[in-house]
Amino acid sequence: MNFCSHCGSPVVSKIPDGDQVPRFVCTNCGLIHYKNPLLVLGCVPEWEDKILLCRRAIEPRRGYWTVPAGFMENGETMQHAAARECQEEALATVEIGSLLAVVNVTHAHQVHVMFRARLLAPQFGAGTESLEVGLYTEAEIPWTDLAFPSGEFTLRKFFADRSAGRDDYHFTELTRPIKY
Amino acid sequence: MNFCSHCGSPVVSKIPDGDQVPRFVCTNCGLIHYKNPLLVLGCVPEWEDKILLCRRAIEPRRGYWTVPAGFMENGETMQHAAARECQEEALATVEIGSLLAVVNVTHAHQVHVMFRARLLAPQFGAGTESLEVGLYTEAEIPWTDLAFPSGEFTLRKFFADRSAGRDDYHFTELTRPIKY
Repeated sequence: MNFCSHCGSPVVSKIPDGDQVPRFVCTNCGLIHYKNPLLVLGCVPEWEDKILLCRRAIEPRRGYWTVPAGFMENGETMQHAAARECQEEALATVEIGSLLAVVNVTHAHQVHVMFRARLLAPQFGAGTESLEVGLYTEAEIPWTDLAFPSGEFTLRKFFADRSAGRDDYHFTELTRPIKY
Repeated sequence: MNFCSHCGSPVVSKIPDGDQVPRFVCTNCGLIHYKNPLLVLGCVPEWEDKILLCRRAIEPRRGYWTVPAGFMENGETMQHAAARECQEEALATVEIGSLLAVVNVTHAHQVHVMFRARLLAPQFGAGTESLEVGLYTEAEIPWTDLAFPSGEFTLRKFFADRSAGRDDYHFTELTRPIKY
């Protein structure tokens, strides 16, 4: 950040009065520009004993596999965001179920929130951000070609809970960037 | 938003190629400026049969009561943010427990996430954002003087679950601004 989005003047990084951390503050109008974590919403869409995965058509991690997920938009609920991302990336309609995983990706300033979901029909396809989309059993999951650690955490918990007949939620923190 | 925070040129609101909603786009460098929901983190700190509440010293809703809560910062987990807010607003140290409430405040572009928490000692005080802080039984809660609907939802669920011996989590959506 170099300029104030309100008045266009240069900003400086400093700790405002009564604050504890540096913020970008406008040198002209004094506006404080806060930067806060972004929410990424996703789901594990289930159809019979299979789940729906997407192979990414965009960077980062083009060509690798992921559960449908993306940035939450203003005006949505978490559940709306998770369902919309599935529609966009996998052209698939889901009913969002219980909370599955919350991954604090602190180094990236993101929180990934993942739900269980039920595919309403075995109908899907590759959205513009996907190279291919398919239904896979647990044994068929491309575990070594998953795009993101949060997705692997989510899928591991999903299958472990399903085997155990549980419907739990799981928090974790991923503190370091993964070297690909 | 009027100016690009990267290069300082004017922005316009338009739907970028491949997108569905209007964004602020720089007329010079083309950067797209996304606006996404903010996370507010809080907790219900418990000590014996009482819970800790703060009376707000700042707007909005100065003079009204709230659970300790505030905006999550970059680099924190949700749990860290909830504990830090309690330290700042109530000068109280808590151990964060289970997930209690997720309130999608869609009109305000916020998601409020609330945890149960255990006060480590009956020690607390008014932080700079609080007029007073105290421990209250369920019967003593100032229900008609609570600052925010998300706080009331959180407290109602907390006491209902405690009475029933449950440890559930609760999602809800608050779709309209409340007229105070």
